[in-house]
Amino acid sequence: MTQFTKKRKLDQSVQDSLYFDSYSDVTIHEEMIADKVRTNSYRLGILRNSKTIQGKVVLDVGAGTGVLSIFCVQAGAKKVYAVEASAIADQAKAIVKLNKMDDKIDVIKGTLETTDLPEAVDVIVSEWMGYALLHESMLNSVIFARDKWLKPGGLILPSKAELYVAPINDLVVEDRLSFWSTVKDQYGVDMSCMSDFARKCIMNNDITVNMVTVEDVLSHPAKFAELDLYTVTTEQLKRVKGSFTCECFGSSCVNALCVWFSVNFPGEEKPLVLSTSPFKQETHWKQSVLYLDEPIDVMQDTKVEGEITLYPSEESSRHICIHVDYTIGDLKKKSKTFTMGDGYSDPQ
Amino acid sequence: MTQFTKKRKLDQSVQDSLYFDSYSDVTIHEEMIADKVRTNSYRLGILRNSKTIQGKVVLDVGAGTGVLSIFCVQAGAKKVYAVEASAIADQAKAIVKLNKMDDKIDVIKGTLETTDLPEAVDVIVSEWMGYALLHESMLNSVIFARDKWLKPGGLILPSKAELYVAPINDLVVEDRLSFWSTVKDQYGVDMSCMSDFARKCIMNNDITVNMVTVEDVLSHPAKFAELDLYTVTTEQLKRVKGSFTCECFGSSCVNALCVWFSVNFPGEEKPLVLSTSPFKQETHWKQSVLYLDEPIDVMQDTKVEGEITLYPSEESSRHICIHVDYTIGDLKKKSKTFTMGDGYSDPQ
Repeated sequence: MTQFTKKRKLDQSVQDSLYFDSYSDVTIHEEMIADKVRTNSYRLGILRNSKTIQGKVVLDVGAGTGVLSIFCVQAGAKKVYAVEASAIADQAKAIVKLNKMDDKIDVIKGTLETTDLPEAVDVIVSEWMGYALLHESMLNSVIFARDKWLKPGGLILPSKAELYVAPINDLVVEDRLSFWSTVKDQYGVDMSCMSDFARKCIMNNDITVNMVTVEDVLSHPAKFAELDLYTVTTEQLKRVKGSFTCECFGSSCVNALCVWFSVNFPGEEKPLVLSTSPFKQETHWKQSVLYLDEPIDVMQDTKVEGEITLYPSEESSRHICIHVDYTIGDLKKKSKTFTMGDGYSDPQ
Repeated sequence: MTQFTKKRKLDQSVQDSLYFDSYSDVTIHEEMIADKVRTNSYRLGILRNSKTIQGKVVLDVGAGTGVLSIFCVQAGAKKVYAVEASAIADQAKAIVKLNKMDDKIDVIKGTLETTDLPEAVDVIVSEWMGYALLHESMLNSVIFARDKWLKPGGLILPSKAELYVAPINDLVVEDRLSFWSTVKDQYGVDMSCMSDFARKCIMNNDITVNMVTVEDVLSHPAKFAELDLYTVTTEQLKRVKGSFTCECFGSSCVNALCVWFSVNFPGEEKPLVLSTSPFKQETHWKQSVLYLDEPIDVMQDTKVEGEITLYPSEESSRHICIHVDYTIGDLKKKSKTFTMGDGYSDPQ
């Protein structure tokens, strides 16, 4: 898993070109389309807004294979501009043609920021969410599109994003740490002293993208930030900050904080929610796990509270960093800063 | 899975330092120790040579956590020099001490090539095998150790390596290609035209490290190369070449060649074999899969034959490349060159 590569600050254009290259392969699109929670939420989120979309002009930001653009035509859109900077745009064109929608969908191969549309749009649709919501920084392009191309009173799908946190006991880590005590029985070599080293390696400063199970979660989740797609600015995205308070269900051991997000599609009655919560069906975003330096015992009603800040990395503005200040029970406040680990440059 | 990084030729010292860094984390050692086939084969391979090892001096090349050195002491070694260049050497020292063998095992933190031993050795033990046997190029260090430090008539464990190939029908790829035809039923969007693109992306020039199952294998394996650890030279490792002929069991479709290796430990009766064959229990080396550009139908007794060459990559001498010239049945000869994909810089 380790790479023969060194972290270094990359020129913005190199960052962008590597970023768009990462979407030129089939694997990432296969994973996104195969993610039924994601794709069905968008499908239903778009279809339930048919009344608004009917006969209107739509802009799809980062269209990928064009699936959301096709959903918009199915919802009655008159015209869809599907803007996609990576080479997958060529496949989107073929798919649009195969579905006999080439009169309604214009696939435009280029970056949103450099694309000149022939008209303003009534609706913007985009699947811009990365790990921990803001990894990849694609929301900046949606904001750019909104400010430049969306008519006043236009619709944005999804229209709201929320960030959540909860303390967890990650059982995989517990298993990995106790593994070293089992080596003696297996091979007659005592390796129990490796546990401390393993703890330092595993409970590091990486944002770890893992599937967290309901059993791991130690309290009700706390919402710590909310982004309104109609009003959020790129300036605000440089520092998304919020506080949280969680009260533990019972006796356990906190070894990590778990962060996830949801996005909302407006609806006539209640909004449709695409959630990446560990309490819901799994998605390809999984959850983002932030390991504490050391596991800490908690009891029923022990408070886990603090502040979380998400901001772009200095090395690469498309990579997310998360800083956490937290207290657990009566222990003194601690701080830890996390960065997205190598190998998570895009949703997998 | 895609990386925000560019392939470029790295200075040899940078390559080495990145390579050794990759062994400083706990994950790779956990995987190697947890690989029971690997660790038990070494344990038994060493113990069955107790008569030779008893009272002798051993050199462990790339000792890692020191587990092989400890097996050698358990087999009666008088002294073991455990040479390890990565930071895991510090853990090896702690483990050796915990097992009360610090009087017998000297853990030396440094590269084999720059280490000065106080004496020549009777035995060399090393776990140097990478993906497709030669990825990582660590065998060069074993050869260096043999030529500089092994007494005439000394023992090398393991003492022989063999490379195998067989045509396979990789079912995972078949599933991934047919996925695109299922999208219409799921979401009402026809994406069947993506299969061709998916084929080009998946059946690419990467050496893919995958678990191949017995059901995938379409013929008896063919051994195409053999390395005698007592005589092989670094010059020979620049080009390890061999030919193969396989006859298919029955009607199927070849979409890849599968390459794997075994190593032998000498014994009084028959050698102990550590095999990474798809017919044997799985190991962390899995198998190395080389996808053809296009699947080709075969029948019973259809011949799949050709030549395979393994050689170090020009960009990084620790990365392996595989060139294959092959014919299937009456089709005209084809050639394809593969490189180890990103994300496989060391055994996982």
